[in-house]
Amino acid sequence: MIKAGIYGATGYTGYELVTILQRHPQVEVLFATSQSFAGQLLSDVYPQAPHLPLILGEEAPLDAVDVVFLCLPHAAAAETAVTALAANVTVIDLSADFRLKDASTYTAWYDKTHPAPHLLADAVYGLTEYARDQLPDAKLVATPGCYPTSILLPLRPLLTSDLPITGPIIADSKSGTSGAGRAPKPGTHFMAVHNNFAPYKIGRSHRHLPEIEQVMHWFRADAPELIFSPHLLPVERGILSTIYVNFSKPVTLEEIRPYFTKLYANEPFICLLPEGELATLAHVTHSNKCAIGLTMAGNTLVITSAIDNLVKGAAGQAVQNMNVVFGLEEIIGLL
Amino acid sequence: MIKAGIYGATGYTGYELVTILQRHPQVEVLFATSQSFAGQLLSDVYPQAPHLPLILGEEAPLDAVDVVFLCLPHAAAAETAVTALAANVTVIDLSADFRLKDASTYTAWYDKTHPAPHLLADAVYGLTEYARDQLPDAKLVATPGCYPTSILLPLRPLLTSDLPITGPIIADSKSGTSGAGRAPKPGTHFMAVHNNFAPYKIGRSHRHLPEIEQVMHWFRADAPELIFSPHLLPVERGILSTIYVNFSKPVTLEEIRPYFTKLYANEPFICLLPEGELATLAHVTHSNKCAIGLTMAGNTLVITSAIDNLVKGAAGQAVQNMNVVFGLEEIIGLL
Amino acid sequence: MIKAGIYGATGYTGYELVTILQRHPQVEVLFATSQSFAGQLLSDVYPQAPHLPLILGEEAPLDAVDVVFLCLPHAAAAETAVTALAANVTVIDLSADFRLKDASTYTAWYDKTHPAPHLLADAVYGLTEYARDQLPDAKLVATPGCYPTSILLPLRPLLTSDLPITGPIIADSKSGTSGAGRAPKPGTHFMAVHNNFAPYKIGRSHRHLPEIEQVMHWFRADAPELIFSPHLLPVERGILSTIYVNFSKPVTLEEIRPYFTKLYANEPFICLLPEGELATLAHVTHSNKCAIGLTMAGNTLVITSAIDNLVKGAAGQAVQNMNVVFGLEEIIGLL
Amino acid sequence: MIKAGIYGATGYTGYELVTILQRHPQVEVLFATSQSFAGQLLSDVYPQAPHLPLILGEEAPLDAVDVVFLCLPHAAAAETAVTALAANVTVIDLSADFRLKDASTYTAWYDKTHPAPHLLADAVYGLTEYARDQLPDAKLVATPGCYPTSILLPLRPLLTSDLPITGPIIADSKSGTSGAGRAPKPGTHFMAVHNNFAPYKIGRSHRHLPEIEQVMHWFRADAPELIFSPHLLPVERGILSTIYVNFSKPVTLEEIRPYFTKLYANEPFICLLPEGELATLAHVTHSNKCAIGLTMAGNTLVITSAIDNLVKGAAGQAVQNMNVVFGLEEIIGLL
Repeated sequence: MIKAGIYGATGYTGYELVTILQRHPQVEVLFATSQSFAGQLLSDVYPQAPHLPLILGEEAPLDAVDVVFLCLPHAAAAETAVTALAANVTVIDLSADFRLKDASTYTAWYDKTHPAPHLLADAVYGLTEYARDQLPDAKLVATPGCYPTSILLPLRPLLTSDLPITGPIIADSKSGTSGAGRAPKPGTHFMAVHNNFAPYKIGRSHRHLPEIEQVMHWFRADAPELIFSPHLLPVERGILSTIYVNFSKPVTLEEIRPYFTKLYANEPFICLLPEGELATLAHVTHSNKCAIGLTMAGNTLVITSAIDNLVKGAAGQAVQNMNVVFGLEEIIGLL
Repeated sequence: MIKAGIYGATGYTGYELVTILQRHPQVEVLFATSQSFAGQLLSDVYPQAPHLPLILGEEAPLDAVDVVFLCLPHAAAAETAVTALAANVTVIDLSADFRLKDASTYTAWYDKTHPAPHLLADAVYGLTEYARDQLPDAKLVATPGCYPTSILLPLRPLLTSDLPITGPIIADSKSGTSGAGRAPKPGTHFMAVHNNFAPYKIGRSHRHLPEIEQVMHWFRADAPELIFSPHLLPVERGILSTIYVNFSKPVTLEEIRPYFTKLYANEPFICLLPEGELATLAHVTHSNKCAIGLTMAGNTLVITSAIDNLVKGAAGQAVQNMNVVFGLEEIIGLL
Repeated sequence: MIKAGIYGATGYTGYELVTILQRHPQVEVLFATSQSFAGQLLSDVYPQAPHLPLILGEEAPLDAVDVVFLCLPHAAAAETAVTALAANVTVIDLSADFRLKDASTYTAWYDKTHPAPHLLADAVYGLTEYARDQLPDAKLVATPGCYPTSILLPLRPLLTSDLPITGPIIADSKSGTSGAGRAPKPGTHFMAVHNNFAPYKIGRSHRHLPEIEQVMHWFRADAPELIFSPHLLPVERGILSTIYVNFSKPVTLEEIRPYFTKLYANEPFICLLPEGELATLAHVTHSNKCAIGLTMAGNTLVITSAIDNLVKGAAGQAVQNMNVVFGLEEIIGLL
Repeated sequence: MIKAGIYGATGYTGYELVTILQRHPQVEVLFATSQSFAGQLLSDVYPQAPHLPLILGEEAPLDAVDVVFLCLPHAAAAETAVTALAANVTVIDLSADFRLKDASTYTAWYDKTHPAPHLLADAVYGLTEYARDQLPDAKLVATPGCYPTSILLPLRPLLTSDLPITGPIIADSKSGTSGAGRAPKPGTHFMAVHNNFAPYKIGRSHRHLPEIEQVMHWFRADAPELIFSPHLLPVERGILSTIYVNFSKPVTLEEIRPYFTKLYANEPFICLLPEGELATLAHVTHSNKCAIGLTMAGNTLVITSAIDNLVKGAAGQAVQNMNVVFGLEEIIGLL
């Protein structure tokens, strides 16, 4: 039985993690922290949650657990990671702190000096299907961002192929509002969202852009530039990314599809849709799946890629990574 | 006082038209037809509608009106147009029947032989801001499709410029479900739409594609190919198109914006957003406006363009066209 | 042309009022105030609003207007009313400050000492259909609350009848979230509302209870007690109240209906539904109407009553009252 | 391992049942039927469903299973029940066919002659918390309706008490649209539901009324009449019933609450809320729980009662009953 602690259990990601771990037959949650609700129960915050006591992060019994999940704001996560690693506890981080390998890029996009740049090199970027070999016994895993997961999973077979991609690649992404967090803001007020649909931080201005481009370059050294347009959907959960990849000469779906099947045909959480079927949120919400549809239009491949931002885009992939780190069956607790 | 008749008043477009014309100070609606609800009142179909009697199309008193609006299925619209024109009544068609200039293209996309191909040449394609000079005293006006309106209005300044556009142009469009019509279908069932978001007919397969490309070629003879991806949004009304236009060499917003201001700065229904502001549905629902935002990302211009599909995308633009045809103030009844 | 000022134009009620007055052919809005957004334009707060400059309340040119509308928090409204009345300006208040006739009841429910108790006796409670005779030339009008409007309009024919009502009367009301105001709160966060439905302050604990019971006693001195249960609906606007009135002996719809038709058959904004039809939000949203349906069940009359909380429940009724105060046609600007 | 078959797997209830049974560690689903989709897979109908083959009901291998669940239209369910019982298979019926004990009442409300009236007496009405003693080894279980479950669970402690209840009892219920079934209809079209809220069949006209009153009389022979008002909510799942019970003399919550705690304090699926807390859909969606809140208002008890209509109101309670019938732990597969 793996003993786990959760830092930041009252955000949407933290609560989703509690929900998943509750059903996980080989994990026991020993503590959950919250700076705002310490002293209360998780069920005081979410009526359906278990009666889990919430404690302050600084009072968490690190010596009692094997692994901690960090659902904390950036910078705070890195500081907690240092403490946990010093106590020899495995860290699965769900913040942005260990996703970027370059500390100066981090500073440029996150407006903070990185609290622990010496840890960046060894942190495993946990896009599980890609990082599976680096995960066993890893001490520090960075769970990818939600948008990056939805975009990188379908780009991987293309960028690691020899197909004649010509840039830029365009990712037009649409996310449910849980991605905007639990703190009430004018932009996530019911009245502002319910009959609306709105783009934000489009082009090359969203923080997930450097993360996605970093990994695109791991896939293919000369990967093209990304244009990334996030939009806010009036639903609770789910991300659909419609991705446009141009080729410099004619390519057919028959030539493209084998690159996907080779990498993903046997992946338990990747659902390659048959020709003609497009990915939708209904394929994936409340699951750890990524659904991928492929459509050819002229010399452009149009990919539809869907995940649940709280599951495969956060808590689910974090647990998937934990399973691999600890040598458990990868799908356990996630079906 | 202009006397008007409405064919097909019980669809969403027809009902929106009734609502707009009710408030129009210079139009009187003399009849409204419905094949399914003839003998009933419009208020039997929509609880808030006026108590307008519904009659069969074949019983409509054409000799009593100056203009008819056709909110009919394709092919049926063309047949009614022939009858109305023979009675010397001006026709504002809201179907797809007179949008395409080429009858064989029509047949290829709409699975019907065109009922009145001899009328295609003289029909005015009523993208009002573009067609204003052709509209006065026109006898037959084709109201553009909803997606085409949202895409063509912002493309016009670019394609009529000398900017070095290199294709394809990508339009990633998202529409509220009123666009799918009033007939209950599995895909527009509340349960299928409410927590979902779904692409459909993406790439080069939607019927609005040939219409958009036809007009793109009017704007620029060598316009690039369009990739067009419609999606269904869980809202009632509104279309947001996110459009990607690549340039073959660096271009700045400062160079691009004047093409837009020159054409649109004084347009009453086009709202050019200031730099940094993106178009959203909240800018336009229940209005005849088109909001346009411009963002540069590398060598790619990202346009956000929003309209209300039932107003500027259908009934509102139809009335705007009628105003110009009959020499009224263009904005009357539309503010 | 009536010259009007609006205090508190940036709340939902204030914005709705601006929208209505913009279309009103006999009103000109001379100023709009906002304590939070003074110096900006209303269009900076609502993208579709007119470019109306927002000024501080204390800088409003009271001497230039005939009437002011107060969309202010309670207590602040009463203070502004005193100032406006001193300047001989008619006051249409949309807050709760002048609805209760008894200052101590006000204090008990609103946790404030009433700033102007001497004005309470002369303030007209503007449930227009009921107060029509008291409104002409009134200097101070209290616009009823949204829930009270939806409940009192259908109760009036019953309570002013001689039907053998036996208490308590139950009003089970459901409101869209615009009723909860524009300030982001955990309870009106999109995520908290969208897939939820929640009662709040049920029984005898909501502030609208004493207001409703006060007017019930005007209708019938020995009116029974009210049980009032508000609920929050995942829609933007609209209130549906399902009201249960018991009779001490058998009564038929045929006996009840004449009391409604006598009072309401010719009311422009009251829509008495035919037998068998139930009121829904779709009957009334974006209109100043109140739809009323009557159903008999044993000895209990079940009333369904629907209004738009922002229109007949606030800004629309305020304008309807202004029309009567100034001797205009009552429906002007409201159709 | 219990071997199960599901008749009617493609309706919302059938699909929910498949989802629950998939996770149930002691049940194996051997077949699933569908008259409309036989020959296809369940995943062809619901993208997230397992690849379960769908067969015609008449081809179901009854000899291979221990239990069948009937998610069929009424009358069809009774006919299948006869066949299954003849094959010595336990029947858990989710239709209305075996809920009413009186065949003539069934005919009056369901417009059909009952196909198997001889089975009515022995069918167990499976409101599990009430029927627990009758369930072990039962051959035929009628799963209660969704509204009845939400109303009867909180009424049971009251009606089996000696509290001085005086009628009528009022249940004002609001249900998500999954309760209206999977077939597209005008009333469940996205456009008709999304910004709407509508009562239907209120008073004493909904089919669940005789079912609820039948059981109320089991609880208390002289139970008062019920007034029952269902409403359609713009959410997918969940029922909230606000129930009003009058007393003929003053009663306090302190006197009432012990009747609830005595029956329900140890029930795994009943969540008695602390004083001051009201039941909401957020307490129960996607769970088998019933949340109950109690509020006193004068001499009236206002109960808020929430369930998920597809779980505790259908598939979940069916599985809960199966667990008891077969001697399994009651909560297994349901947490």
